[in-house]
Amino acid sequence: MKEKHLEKIVHFDKEKIESLDKRFRANFINSVTGYKSANLIGTVGKNGVSNLAIFSSITHLGSDPALLGFITRPTTVSRHTYSNIKETGQFTVNHIHTNIIKQAHQTAARYDGDVSEFEATGLTEDFIGNFKAPFLAEAHIRIACEYVNEYPIKENGTVLMVGAIKDIYLPEDSFTDDGWINLSSVDGVTVNGLDSYAKAELIDRLSYAKPGKDVESILKEK
Amino acid sequence: MKEKHLEKIVHFDKEKIESLDKRFRANFINSVTGYKSANLIGTVGKNGVSNLAIFSSITHLGSDPALLGFITRPTTVSRHTYSNIKETGQFTVNHIHTNIIKQAHQTAARYDGDVSEFEATGLTEDFIGNFKAPFLAEAHIRIACEYVNEYPIKENGTVLMVGAIKDIYLPEDSFTDDGWINLSSVDGVTVNGLDSYAKAELIDRLSYAKPGKDVESILKEK
Repeated sequence: MKEKHLEKIVHFDKEKIESLDKRFRANFINSVTGYKSANLIGTVGKNGVSNLAIFSSITHLGSDPALLGFITRPTTVSRHTYSNIKETGQFTVNHIHTNIIKQAHQTAARYDGDVSEFEATGLTEDFIGNFKAPFLAEAHIRIACEYVNEYPIKENGTVLMVGAIKDIYLPEDSFTDDGWINLSSVDGVTVNGLDSYAKAELIDRLSYAKPGKDVESILKEK
Repeated sequence: MKEKHLEKIVHFDKEKIESLDKRFRANFINSVTGYKSANLIGTVGKNGVSNLAIFSSITHLGSDPALLGFITRPTTVSRHTYSNIKETGQFTVNHIHTNIIKQAHQTAARYDGDVSEFEATGLTEDFIGNFKAPFLAEAHIRIACEYVNEYPIKENGTVLMVGAIKDIYLPEDSFTDDGWINLSSVDGVTVNGLDSYAKAELIDRLSYAKPGKDVESILKEK
């Protein structure tokens, strides 16, 4: 179990991290926390222009009420997402799958505010019911969210945005009878660092952990 | 590209989500934001008892300064992590890999405060230099963090904890010349929902996105 641990390990201390080339450090620190979620956030501004932007920071915050969060920086490329959400109070979260990685990555380009990333990248916007924010037609799992709150992170000028989950659309064969969504069944990807995408394959689903009891596989055919 | 999207899609609206069985909803909402990072946080309390706890919410917050965040709930099973960090100001982040999934999952059991999850699960604690918090010997990528701040999320009683990255230990062949860490090279796993683990395999690494320019692979043998 320790074979890799016993390979040559290198140590980056605080001084070394701070002295790294800016691009090296961005790649390094963006990879070092592990795999990240891979989603496209869809919004629309008061000007009527749709926006679609890739985010790797979308995180579960709670199930009751159903809340999610993501980190943004109001002054950078994702500023349209932030300002559109503040204007309309709505956004959509659309899972990235293996077939749309390049288009999803391309949404990170610094398009002007009058350009829709849907049109620029060849992805398809989709409006459902009276929800103002656009969904991504190509995504298999899609979530409609309403803005709830924001928490400015004073240490670096980022903001934790909190959204309430209002609607979820997904294939009926993608989840089990007890509500677990098998993300590999919808070809979900995960982000490694700033620019890399990995395909994830389920290893196992494990029983609820209790002291003194070995965990075991609870995976079963649906 | 749309073959799955055109399968039968089911819709969960707010009322349906709120009326779901509690366990179904927990599984469902914990899976619906996509893949999550898979780490074990190591801490030690004033009482000298080590603690190791699985977290799937560790997220990159910024590279300069190097900051990470995670979500916790001070009143639940992970309370020892929270209270130990408040007591000592230190914690470690240790990547979960394919060979330690069951032990990692087992750390979520509600052990008493005088029980070390290292001992209870058969994992190995490791102290490096004068850093007080224990590292996980079995992990290939290990990070020492100092507590910086906390942001209570008033919507559901969780807390965003912010840590500063002080030290990083990793295999010398796990990252490229430009700082990108290939997480699949160290058998990194990702979390799907509350209880499932997936092995991730790199698909591609893509060039910096610019308007009007197609992204292309920048993957190369090191």
